[in-house]
This record gives sequence, structure tokens and C-alpha cells, in this order.
Amino acid sequence: MSAAEQDAASEARRRIDELYSPERFGELAETWRRLLTSHLRSVESSSGKVLNWNPPEVNVREAERQLAAGEGSPVAGDQLEARFQELAEQCLSRGQNLHDPRYIGHQVPPPSPIAGLFDALGTVTNQVMAVYEMGPWATAVERALIHRWGEALGLPAGRFAGLITSGGSLANLTALLTARNVALPEAWEHGLPQEGPRPALVVHADAHYGIARSAGMLGLGTQQVIRAPLDERRRMDPDALDAILAGLARDGTPVVAVVACSCATPIGAFDSLPQIADVCERHGVWLHVDAAHGGGMIFSETRRGLLDGLARADSFICDAHKMLFVPALCAFVFYKRPEHRFEAFRQEAPYLFDPSAPAAADYDVGLMTVECTKRAAAFGLWGVWSLFGSRIFGDLVDATCDGALRLHSLIVEADDFEPLHEPQGNIVVFRHVPDWLRGQSLEAIGDANREIRRRLILSGRYYLTQTSLGGAGALRCTVMNPLTVEAHFAGLLEALRDIGRQVAGL
Amino acid sequence: MSAAEQDAASEARRRIDELYSPERFGELAETWRRLLTSHLRSVESSSGKVLNWNPPEVNVREAERQLAAGEGSPVAGDQLEARFQELAEQCLSRGQNLHDPRYIGHQVPPPSPIAGLFDALGTVTNQVMAVYEMGPWATAVERALIHRWGEALGLPAGRFAGLITSGGSLANLTALLTARNVALPEAWEHGLPQEGPRPALVVHADAHYGIARSAGMLGLGTQQVIRAPLDERRRMDPDALDAILAGLARDGTPVVAVVACSCATPIGAFDSLPQIADVCERHGVWLHVDAAHGGGMIFSETRRGLLDGLARADSFICDAHKMLFVPALCAFVFYKRPEHRFEAFRQEAPYLFDPSAPAAADYDVGLMTVECTKRAAAFGLWGVWSLFGSRIFGDLVDATCDGALRLHSLIVEADDFEPLHEPQGNIVVFRHVPDWLRGQSLEAIGDANREIRRRLILSGRYYLTQTSLGGAGALRCTVMNPLTVEAHFAGLLEALRDIGRQVAGL
Repeated sequence: MSAAEQDAASEARRRIDELYSPERFGELAETWRRLLTSHLRSVESSSGKVLNWNPPEVNVREAERQLAAGEGSPVAGDQLEARFQELAEQCLSRGQNLHDPRYIGHQVPPPSPIAGLFDALGTVTNQVMAVYEMGPWATAVERALIHRWGEALGLPAGRFAGLITSGGSLANLTALLTARNVALPEAWEHGLPQEGPRPALVVHADAHYGIARSAGMLGLGTQQVIRAPLDERRRMDPDALDAILAGLARDGTPVVAVVACSCATPIGAFDSLPQIADVCERHGVWLHVDAAHGGGMIFSETRRGLLDGLARADSFICDAHKMLFVPALCAFVFYKRPEHRFEAFRQEAPYLFDPSAPAAADYDVGLMTVECTKRAAAFGLWGVWSLFGSRIFGDLVDATCDGALRLHSLIVEADDFEPLHEPQGNIVVFRHVPDWLRGQSLEAIGDANREIRRRLILSGRYYLTQTSLGGAGALRCTVMNPLTVEAHFAGLLEALRDIGRQVAGL
Repeated sequence: MSAAEQDAASEARRRIDELYSPERFGELAETWRRLLTSHLRSVESSSGKVLNWNPPEVNVREAERQLAAGEGSPVAGDQLEARFQELAEQCLSRGQNLHDPRYIGHQVPPPSPIAGLFDALGTVTNQVMAVYEMGPWATAVERALIHRWGEALGLPAGRFAGLITSGGSLANLTALLTARNVALPEAWEHGLPQEGPRPALVVHADAHYGIARSAGMLGLGTQQVIRAPLDERRRMDPDALDAILAGLARDGTPVVAVVACSCATPIGAFDSLPQIADVCERHGVWLHVDAAHGGGMIFSETRRGLLDGLARADSFICDAHKMLFVPALCAFVFYKRPEHRFEAFRQEAPYLFDPSAPAAADYDVGLMTVECTKRAAAFGLWGVWSLFGSRIFGDLVDATCDGALRLHSLIVEADDFEPLHEPQGNIVVFRHVPDWLRGQSLEAIGDANREIRRRLILSGRYYLTQTSLGGAGALRCTVMNPLTVEAHFAGLLEALRDIGRQVAGL
């Protein structure tokens, strides 16, 4: 090595030591703590905007500018803290403020900040799974939560299986892959059958778009998704399902699964699972339930009845990062029969799964999940549960669902708002129909509502979402922030009126 | 509401306020900071065990005990901090210590702790994507990094597309789904073709198990995976590939894609991509490259040549959570032609994608990723890059790859160790063959090596992995910790000798 090469190598070593220095970490973590504490205080007290809106091009340009700054003049030791603070502040000041009580938006909660701290223990130390020995405690925490949440949901202790994966869409895909492999035992090795009628997937007509995507991904085809009709509350109609399955049986069409919802996304309708399970059992068809949103309801004394029958499903999914109020992503898949846990994937990977320790295979989660390296996603849930007990989840479910009922009442009471359903959980869909919109076509009213919403969220005063119902635009709130109280709901309606008048030019 | 109900409601409100209190967060974050700083100091100086081994059943029981404790006696205010500390210490003391320089194991790095702090900003505030308005800054950060890393990898600025997803397996699946949909345009809607020869996927014989899994998931069938032969350095043989593709063309077998590796997992072999790209272009076949591990090599002046030809691939993936040393999971998919970004999924979800803002669709990442809700996975990478410039990644790549060469030299020099290849990157596969094993069958030697490894990792003295090579067990190190230096490699060989003697009963 030349002298110049030696100099370069020791410079590189110095940079690496700085990057990994525990002392540096401690200093920056103090800045991190201070910024986040102050940020949460400010956001929870609604002192700024809910959504910090910038057009995508503007934000991308700014994010790129910072990268270029790093290239141009990497920090030397004494500038590190100031530069870290600048970058961290930018992350905090340009995002979406879910902890603001005026955030009444998507099915994504403001997580308990304490859950975030537990999650970040796994992040900083990079606890991951695939094989047990890489993440022994991460694996154990997941397994413990699968046991306890599964039992709470009605599965018999020690006689079911489960896994945690990166999000509800991936969880549904994994369960439906299992269902496909069971319904079509040759498919995994030989591909979809080339003989006979194409297999079908029968789904709640309002099922999440990820379900039809799963059919596309798994080689079934999105056109092979049969949407079962809904009743007047947008729940799957068990009689219609029965008729569909009878028809498919007559044609000899294999059915991969029936997909029910607890709850469906548009208005939060919970299917009547006991009746649907009866129909599926009669036809010998796999029942999968997408309980991504509703799975947390089990912890509410007054709302757990919404999940009656769930434990009869062959598979179902529940997202902890929805109604258990932990950071994204932490999605659970449950199988009623433990032997199904290895049906999704059937393989060997010699550099991973060690034949000298075969007993550990049941704890090598990579055998059950799409992910090979999988992050420790459940530290947050485990921490909150261990600190406060599962009662805290019931508190959160009730606070948000009670809030939805309160919002619904305000809508019912107001002359210029139209409720579009009775909330079963914490989703409320409605339209603003002030005088200036009355008598217009439903489409025009829907478009105006979308326009009002867009202007409102860009103003940063409130955050809510939109959907399409009955063929026209509508406003949609998920009461997903337990800090949102009556005054915020009243304020939301007032803000919609206000923006509405601007849209009308009044 | 009865008086009892009112009391219960205000008790619940008190618990929720405690859970979301910024002051409480600030207090616990100080404990968190103190514990993590001290943990990193202790681990980086090798003052404990690398792997804290407990049998799975023991860890699961302990994790369940803590959940039960939460159920039994949830904490009241003044016990919170002590209990938080107890739980956090448990997470830290029962895991795998990747920051210990004696961790020379899987293709998972000890991430820069500073990257962990940036990542956790997104976690605590729950910045997520799907639609741009939910995570405007998170989306911008991802887009900026896709631009800069893509350009560094040789893609022309402004004329390619990319996305970030939850891990390399999901990234490969997404890219191969795109390839499938392009090769078989009817498959997404109508399912796999029922006429003609079944489509095939031609892959590097050592490709990651996730590739064959993708074939199983996508409805092609794992048996439709054709493993292209390797040359003497375990790189895909371009001539053999050419012959395979010619044969498939003669049979009229549709080819979904060719999958090459940069690098393959077993020994870290980098394919000769220019030659493979020539073959694929000649046959008009989609080339996908799994550069999950190797993508970071582009930042090393001396090693970027390993990736020559990568930018000619139709799609490829690179994991930032491997050789860019950020926490799991942060996997990139790149498409050479931007129009392919919407080929994987083709759908509408009215409650998500707002027709009143169509221009934003290109920034609604849910249209391109399996995930609907997707966590902000790239804050860590963006933060480190913005602070230190991309040169730091070159430093880390060189430190670990130079380390691998050093380990290899020690193995070559030792009489009782047998090198099994010349490392191209930072993966080193070898066997311990002391006198007491000489003359035994390869299988017996391999089994003994596995047994030695298992005892060594359970002892906590070092951490390395195992694989199967030439039909027998072998030891496998990925030099993935930039703090690992010469003395650790020498110590590893010494420890293997030591445990070997125990296994032999000497």
C-alpha cells in the first residue's frame, strides 16, 4: 500500500468510526428526543397544519438538494449536530401530522409514541428474522403476540398458527396463496391448471383492492374474482353467496376461497361471519376474512360482537398498525389449522435453514413469510401491551368508535350534511349538500365534495379522505385519532361549510 | 350515560392521555437514549456475547410472561419509567448483536445508528405512503433516492423508474410480476395461459430461494424454473444460457425472464452482466438482476466494475439494508423503461386515488407497490447520505470487502482451513479441516463443520453462518460489520479450532 493509499484508508476508517460512534449516537439521540417531544406537543395541541402540503416536485427537489449538499460538503465533526437537526426538522415539518386531533383521515392511526420507542429499539440494533438465531427475541415477541391476540380472537390455545408480515396487502396475499395451494395442490410446483374451468375467488363486492390484486398476482386473473352482492348495509349477502357457490359447483369451477370483510373499506361494513361461515362449510370452501381494520375490536367489551364467527375462518388477517395503534407495518395472518402454516411456501435454502438444528425450523419465520430478512415489527405492540395490558386497546377502540358515532350524530342533525350509512365501527361516509348544491346531479354534488375536500386538506385545517359511493364522490372520515373530540368534529363540519362557500364563490 | 359509565370513560381518557403524553414520551425517550448508547458502547467493544442464545420455547415463555404481567397489573404513572426500562433492557439483552465486531454472519449489516434515528422519526410520527398526501415528505425522500442511486448505477437521469418496498424478496417478486405481465399480457386479467407450453423462468442456478418462490406465487410453478449452469466461479455461463434460450424458442416456450445475480448468495458470485445482457437482447427476453446484495458496490471506486452491465437489465433490485448499512427493510426496484412502473398492478381504488388530483398519481406509490400502507423506509438512507455524502457507502463497502480478502488470506495460509473460492465481494465460504477430520468423507467433514459452527454461535463468542456447497456443509462468513478487523478474523479461526477440538473430544 502506498503512503497515499494508507492516508486514504485511515481517513475512511475515521469516517466509519464517526458513523458508528456510540458517543455521537448519544448526542444526536438527545437532539432527536428534544425535537420529537416538542413536535408531538405542538402537533397534539393543533398549533400548526395537519397536512404540510407541498407539491411533489417541490418536495422531491428539496430532498434531492439535501443529498447534493451531502455530496458536496460532507459534515466534519463539529457541524454534525446542527446538520442532523436541520435534516430531522425537515422530516418533521414537511410530513403529515397524524397526532393532530384534526387528522380524521385514512385507516392509519397516530401510533402511541411509546410504541414508536419500542419499535426503534429493533431498528437501531437491526433485529431481523428469517431464521430464529438471527432474531431470537424478535421471533419470541412475535410468537407471543400471535398466541395472545389469536386466543383473544377466539382461536383455541395451542391449536392454530400465525405469522407477522409487512402490511395488510401482503398478509392477504400470503393467506390467499395458502388457500390457492390447498385448493389447487399442483399449482405451487406445476403452475395453474391448464385443464377445466379457471378457478375463481369469490369476494365481498367492496373488498380492498389488494384482494383482486392477489388474484392477479397469484396467476388466477383479476377477472376470475366474483364479487358477491351486498345487503342494504353493504355487508356480503349470505344467500347470494350461497347461490354463487352452488352455481360454481354445478359448473365444476374450483373455488380458491371466499373473502369476507371485518370490515370492508368503503363504509366500514362488518360481514355477518357466522352465516357466511355456514355457507362456506356447506360448500367445503376456504373462508378468508380480511379483518385488517376490525381485528382490534375484539378488545372492546361493547364491540367485540362485530367479530363473532371470525375464528371459524380458515384464515384471516388483522393489522396491529390499524386499531391497535402501533406504527406501520405490523400485520398478522392467522390460520385456524396449524398445518397450513407451511402451505404458502415449500422450499429449502441450505444457507439459511440449518439441518443441524431441525427443531428450530418451526421458529424460522422465513419458512412462512414472503420476506426473507424481516424486520422486528412487533416490539411496539409487545411493549404497549406489556405496560398497559390489552385493556388499553379497548380504550382506544371505544374512544374512536364513540367519536365516529358522535360525528355521525352531528351529520344527522345538520341540514346541510347527508349521512350515507350508520357507522358500525369508526368509518363515517357522508356528503356536504348546502343550499347551493341542492337539486344538482349526484355526480355534480360528488365532484363538489371532492373539490371541497381537496381544498380543505391543502389548507392544513383538517385532514379527511374521499371515496366513491353510489357512483359519486363522497367525504370519508376514519376516526383514527383517540385525541379527536367533539369540538373537532363540529369544527370539521364548519370548515367544510366555509370551504364550500369558497368553492361556490359565495 | 350512568355515573359508573362516566367514571369508566374518564378513566379510559386518563389512560389514553398518558399513552399519548409528549411529556411521558420525553421522559421515556431519555431512558431509551441512555440504554441504547450504553448498549452500543458495550456491544461495539465486544464486552458480552454476540448472539444471546436462549431456546425458542424459553424466549417465547418470557415474552408471554411480560404480556401477562401487563394484563395483570398495568402500570400506574410513577412505575412507568422503571417498567419501560425493564422491557427495553430485555429487548436489548436477548437479541443478536450485529454491532459486535465478532458478528461476521448473514447478509444483514449492523446499520449506522444515525440511520436508525432518522428511520425512527418516520416510525414515531407514522409517516406512511400509498397516496402522496399521506406521506408527502416520505414519498419525496424515496423518489430522490431512487433518482440518485439509479443514476449512480448507470441509468440515464429522468428516463427510468423505481420504487421502494419491504425487502428483497418482495422487490424480486414485484419485478418478476412486471416481467410476467409484459411477457404474458393476458395473465393479469385472465390468469396464466391454458394453451401452449407452460412459460418458463430461466435463473442463475444459485439464485436466492425467493426467485423460485416467485415462480410458485405468480402461478408459473416452481418446476418451470430452469437453472442455468454456472462456470467454475459459480457465475451464470452465458453460452449455456444462450443454448437454453435457443431451445425454449424452438419449443415455443414463452420465457418470462432471465434472472442473473449481483451477487448470488452462496459464495457471492457476480455474474458477467454484459455478456448475459447480450444473450437476452439477442433472444428478446426480459433480463432481471437480483443485485440485492451487490447494488452498494457502485459506490466503491475499486469494486464498481462488478456491476458493469447492470443498467442494461430491464429490471433489477438493490437492498439499501444490505451494503448501504441502513436498518431493514429498504429494498429498491429499478425499471430501465419508465412505462413499466405501472405494469405490475393495474387497478383503481376510489377511496384512495382521487380523481380530482390525477397529476398526483405518479407520486401515489401504492400504484406501484404490493403494499397499500407502506412505511417510510428510506429516511435512514437519506439522512446518512445527506450528512456524509455517498462516499461513506464506498468506505463501508471497501472496509468490508477488504476484510473478506483478509479473512480469505488467513484461510489460505492456514493448514487446517480450506478456502472454497476466491471472494469477489464480502462473502467467504470455507471449511475447517483439522487433522482429526482429514481423510473423512466430504459429508462427514461438512457435518462436523455445521456442528462446530452451531456450538460456536451458541457460545456467543462469534457469529457466522453455514451453507451447503458441493453437496456438503460449509462455513460461511459475510463480512458485514465495518468494525471487524484483522484480530477478529484470526480470533474466529482460533475459536473454530477450539470448538473443533471439543467436538472431536480432544
